Amino acid sequence: MNEIPVTERTKVRRLAERGRYERQEVYDIIDEALVSHVSVVEEGRPLVLPTLHVRRGDLLYIHGSPANALLRAARDRSDVCVAITILDGLVLARSGFHHSVNYRSAVVFGRADEVNDLEEKQAALDAIVDHVAPGRLPFLRPMTEKDIKGTLVLSVPLEEASAKVRTGMPKDEPEDYDLPIWAGVLPVGVQRYQPLSDPKNLPGVTVPQHVLDWRNKQTN
Amino acid sequence: MNEIPVTERTKVRRLAERGRYERQEVYDIIDEALVSHVSVVEEGRPLVLPTLHVRRGDLLYIHGSPANALLRAARDRSDVCVAITILDGLVLARSGFHHSVNYRSAVVFGRADEVNDLEEKQAALDAIVDHVAPGRLPFLRPMTEKDIKGTLVLSVPLEEASAKVRTGMPKDEPEDYDLPIWAGVLPVGVQRYQPLSDPKNLPGVTVPQHVLDWRNKQTN
Repeated sequence: MNEIPVTERTKVRRLAERGRYERQEVYDIIDEALVSHVSVVEEGRPLVLPTLHVRRGDLLYIHGSPANALLRAARDRSDVCVAITILDGLVLARSGFHHSVNYRSAVVFGRADEVNDLEEKQAALDAIVDHVAPGRLPFLRPMTEKDIKGTLVLSVPLEEASAKVRTGMPKDEPEDYDLPIWAGVLPVGVQRYQPLSDPKNLPGVTVPQHVLDWRNKQTN
Repeated sequence: MNEIPVTERTKVRRLAERGRYERQEVYDIIDEALVSHVSVVEEGRPLVLPTLHVRRGDLLYIHGSPANALLRAARDRSDVCVAITILDGLVLARSGFHHSVNYRSAVVFGRADEVNDLEEKQAALDAIVDHVAPGRLPFLRPMTEKDIKGTLVLSVPLEEASAKVRTGMPKDEPEDYDLPIWAGVLPVGVQRYQPLSDPKNLPGVTVPQHVLDWRNKQTN
């Protein structure tokens, strides 16, 4: 067991039984999700935008253009909150009130540091590519110093984080179980379709195995 | 054409050609997505959490338990930012640098008002159920006043909002198009699996048609 210490902000109060503080369980959610939502305070008001992320060890990396207003605000003002959410199913209860969703959701609080060390920055960028497109890195044109300098990378330590998870069937009012209403769960996940080849690919270049392999994955 | 007036906050500056201000285009993203991420400023620091939403006319509704800390902060402090993101594909370029995702993303800024009028509140809650589970409402145990009072509903006017959209193939460096690297797009969407029936359903109650119908939808 390796729990992330619970703080005032990470303690799940509402439906406390859904709270998760085990480090590996939080990390598994972060690692599975492709998209995260990063929020900052900008001139006293909230701002939240989606981004791609990756975890390396106990650091969460997010990246974008050096012109990205959110990342610049995060770098300058430091305090960020990152939400990472995976939808697992629709919970179809006998009343509207008890309709819900099954989900795994992680939230991270921390201060964002700009990654300036070229080696760490390249490793983080490679990891982001490998997170979005597993196994693809060895087939790409290698990263140049211009590429690395053309990207803003921030790291957030995974020191203040927790997760919230809902699984299973609807929880209806006791008397509603006597109603002849079908209830259950509709599981949902990420669907991968057939890859579309760039018309500008050189003749004879076909869809590589690493891309075909993703279609066979049935995880989120 | 019905554009949402562009403000300092909603103007897409980075990759401005991806900006969308047409009201219907922003609304279509909000209507298609199930999950939204709501952020508030809490004691000077950012907080963002996922929630379910629905749009009715020019209002965005979000809801949760009256004990939900985020919603309470939103109600008390008013300023919220809501991000609604749909992932459409992985953009697989010839370099790591140009890897990206195709997406449709809406962002809404505004002040959250608590909905206290019972009729509007019930209509909003019904609309949220219908958004998550289209066509299911007529088959449910009707909503009670206790249900309505047991939920906190906030509305945010859709007056300051915009969207950002990426579509299409990778945009690689000119010289990289000469490399024999496969590039393209892997389209992704929401996968709906077989419904799981609640073991507590009454005998003879089978999966209704409205639930079976969702499986045939291939949209996000």
